[in-house]
Amino acid sequence: MTTVGILGGGQLARMLALAGAPLGLRFLVMDQAADACAAQFVPMLKADYTDEAALAEFASRVDVVTFDFENVPAQSAQWLAGKVPVFPSPRALAVAQDRLAEKSLFNDLGIATPRFSAVASRPDLDRALSEIGAPCILKTRRLGYDGKGQFRLASSDDADAAWEALGGQAETVGLILEGFVAFQRELSVVAVRARDGSFRAWPLTQNWHAKGILSASLAPADASPALIDQALSHARAVADELDYVGVFALELFERDGELLANEMAPRVHNSGHWTIEGAECSQFENHLRAVLGLPLGSCDARGRACMLNWVGELPDARAALAVAGVHWHDYGKSPREGRKVGHATAVAENARGLESQLIALGQALGREKQVSGVVAALG
Amino acid sequence: MTTVGILGGGQLARMLALAGAPLGLRFLVMDQAADACAAQFVPMLKADYTDEAALAEFASRVDVVTFDFENVPAQSAQWLAGKVPVFPSPRALAVAQDRLAEKSLFNDLGIATPRFSAVASRPDLDRALSEIGAPCILKTRRLGYDGKGQFRLASSDDADAAWEALGGQAETVGLILEGFVAFQRELSVVAVRARDGSFRAWPLTQNWHAKGILSASLAPADASPALIDQALSHARAVADELDYVGVFALELFERDGELLANEMAPRVHNSGHWTIEGAECSQFENHLRAVLGLPLGSCDARGRACMLNWVGELPDARAALAVAGVHWHDYGKSPREGRKVGHATAVAENARGLESQLIALGQALGREKQVSGVVAALG
Ligand SMILES: Nc1ncnc2c1ncn2[C@@H]1O[C@H](COP(=O)(O)OP(=O)(O)O)[C@@H](O)[C@H]1O
Ligand SMILES: Nc1ncnc2c1ncn2[C@@H]1O[C@H](COP(=O)(O)OP(=O)(O)O)[C@@H](O)[C@H]1O
Ligand SMILES: [Mg+2]
Ligand SMILES: [Mg+2]
Repeated sequence: MTTVGILGGGQLARMLALAGAPLGLRFLVMDQAADACAAQFVPMLKADYTDEAALAEFASRVDVVTFDFENVPAQSAQWLAGKVPVFPSPRALAVAQDRLAEKSLFNDLGIATPRFSAVASRPDLDRALSEIGAPCILKTRRLGYDGKGQFRLASSDDADAAWEALGGQAETVGLILEGFVAFQRELSVVAVRARDGSFRAWPLTQNWHAKGILSASLAPADASPALIDQALSHARAVADELDYVGVFALELFERDGELLANEMAPRVHNSGHWTIEGAECSQFENHLRAVLGLPLGSCDARGRACMLNWVGELPDARAALAVAGVHWHDYGKSPREGRKVGHATAVAENARGLESQLIALGQALGREKQVSGVVAALG
Repeated sequence: MTTVGILGGGQLARMLALAGAPLGLRFLVMDQAADACAAQFVPMLKADYTDEAALAEFASRVDVVTFDFENVPAQSAQWLAGKVPVFPSPRALAVAQDRLAEKSLFNDLGIATPRFSAVASRPDLDRALSEIGAPCILKTRRLGYDGKGQFRLASSDDADAAWEALGGQAETVGLILEGFVAFQRELSVVAVRARDGSFRAWPLTQNWHAKGILSASLAPADASPALIDQALSHARAVADELDYVGVFALELFERDGELLANEMAPRVHNSGHWTIEGAECSQFENHLRAVLGLPLGSCDARGRACMLNWVGELPDARAALAVAGVHWHDYGKSPREGRKVGHATAVAENARGLESQLIALGQALGREKQVSGVVAALG
């Protein structure tokens, strides 16, 4: 009997557990929140990620550790790695946790990124601003997610307001200024690397964000073989360099046919949720296979899929389930503004089928706007 | 928040819970065995099905009741139905629990069956034998499963041995003598009927048994439109007559182009496990949708699928996972002779693809014999 320990007990842990049950796996999640939604189906250790006694108990009850949440303190991951195998490695986690470290790594590997510069102080922000130019975005280096910890500057006149908003974090999590990219679209590569170095990637995914939070994903994205090739080889280069084990996502901006790497997520990723029904083997199952040293499953797509995120509250499930080909995912969370509470995935044989499903679904749920970008991309 | 109560906590309850989690459902299983495998993922009430205090607690903690196990005492189901909605209804359950009642119902609906006769005593067995002729099978009317509670008679000389084996149960669960059908193949219809009477069926499935236990299923089965039509209309007639709500299976023998109904299972069925990966909506999800009064999902197949049952012990998972398109299902049970401990489903776009997967899988696991019937059917 193999028990997988997951740091973080949110929807990613929940979907990992649901994917791992058929593999005969048991799970233990560790989370700081008593109502973590994975705990509806698997045992949970409720504790702070820095509580060493709790980490010791956690390590003693599991065979391998992985993450639902990448912002676990690097020291905690390091400490656990002394007791039990941890995948991805604390080093990979540390790089992916830090926008400066990951962008520097991308550039070292010859992967283009938006222009960026570390910002240590108020005068340093002016220096960075004159270097990068406006428009640009000031971001926290660490702990940002779902667009949190970001301030957009239209011109250098916004420098004071930006510092007001984020300057207090310059000495705790650090800051980075990035050039704003007027991209045509956002893409992601969700990929998996096994303990033996074998590498697979799901088809390229196109993503739409609303208020900094993922709103819709379409896969496979329409793209030229050359673009796909470049995206996949970027992902592979990063994974090989970090000796990465497990699933990760590489977020990309496409501007005038060029790819710029935005960030990597060292875990299963929201833009890979469509793989549950839309691919041969899901990101959740393949992450577990990788972490456990099992052979990887096929990442081939089954038809065309679109994932729609439910943020804040769930739309009407009954109306959605009446649309053929729609798969519902309620994370069992209570509604809260800006919170990811579920998603739905529509799968069809081809673009035309998916388009009509999305139009029907948009109408059934009053979410015409949310599906409109995807419908346009399919048209 | 909706909690579904399941009587029985085996692999069917486990797969129902895994399918229901994405619908935002919670579960409570009730089982007599402390190690029931569904309890690895959902809460369990360990009690005897006839324990009225336990039934009362169970009813108070759930919103609706359904079954993993059809041999729950009819009175217990009836008692629960006085407290909370129970689907399928206790009446449907009572009919499907009794081989005599179900075969009589089939005949009343114009559905052919093997010849059969109730057997109440040793002289009555002689009477039935002369009526039906050998070869034939003496079966318990109730509580039989996986070929248990059956005795095959090659000639009337075997009457004493048959009575020796099963006569003691004539007054408890009852006995039935059935003509042995020299069928060409076994088929099943797995279907679902909603609270509002809407009815859907997955494609016809061909089944292979070994030692009275399901060994392999192939879907969609190769069959003429007329045969498919007849099988589906038989299933629909039975469901409508019983005002059935939920998933059920109708097991059929095909002999010289004619269909004879063997039995019905008033629950999700082993011959429907392929629907998890091989159909748009699985039998587990659709059972929950039906029981909860939600719209039914599509039963369309996605390509061609073959399910292989693991009985007694699991083959090597690692070897199986190395074969592309193979999905593994380990029920988390300890090995035991004759026990269903897991299954695998291979899915491919077409018969040729499935055939090569099965050959590869058979070789990888040393299960060439188990796949041979399916490979021949595909050839
Ligand atoms: N440099 C940038 N140029 C243009 N848009 C950006 C830039 N950085 C972030 N964004 C937008 O904000 C979204 C969220 O920012 P991201 O850096 O990915 O942070 P998070 O960790 O919150 O996902 C991106 O998906 C993109 O839509
Ligand atoms: N009347 C029959 N003629 C031929 N084979 C039979 C007959 N009854 C049962 N069998 C064989 O035994 C298997 C199990 O019997 P069944 O009546 O379905 O009981 P169970 O409830 O154990 O599934 C069937 O699938 C079939 O292979
Ligand atoms: Mg991002
Ligand atoms: Mg049977």
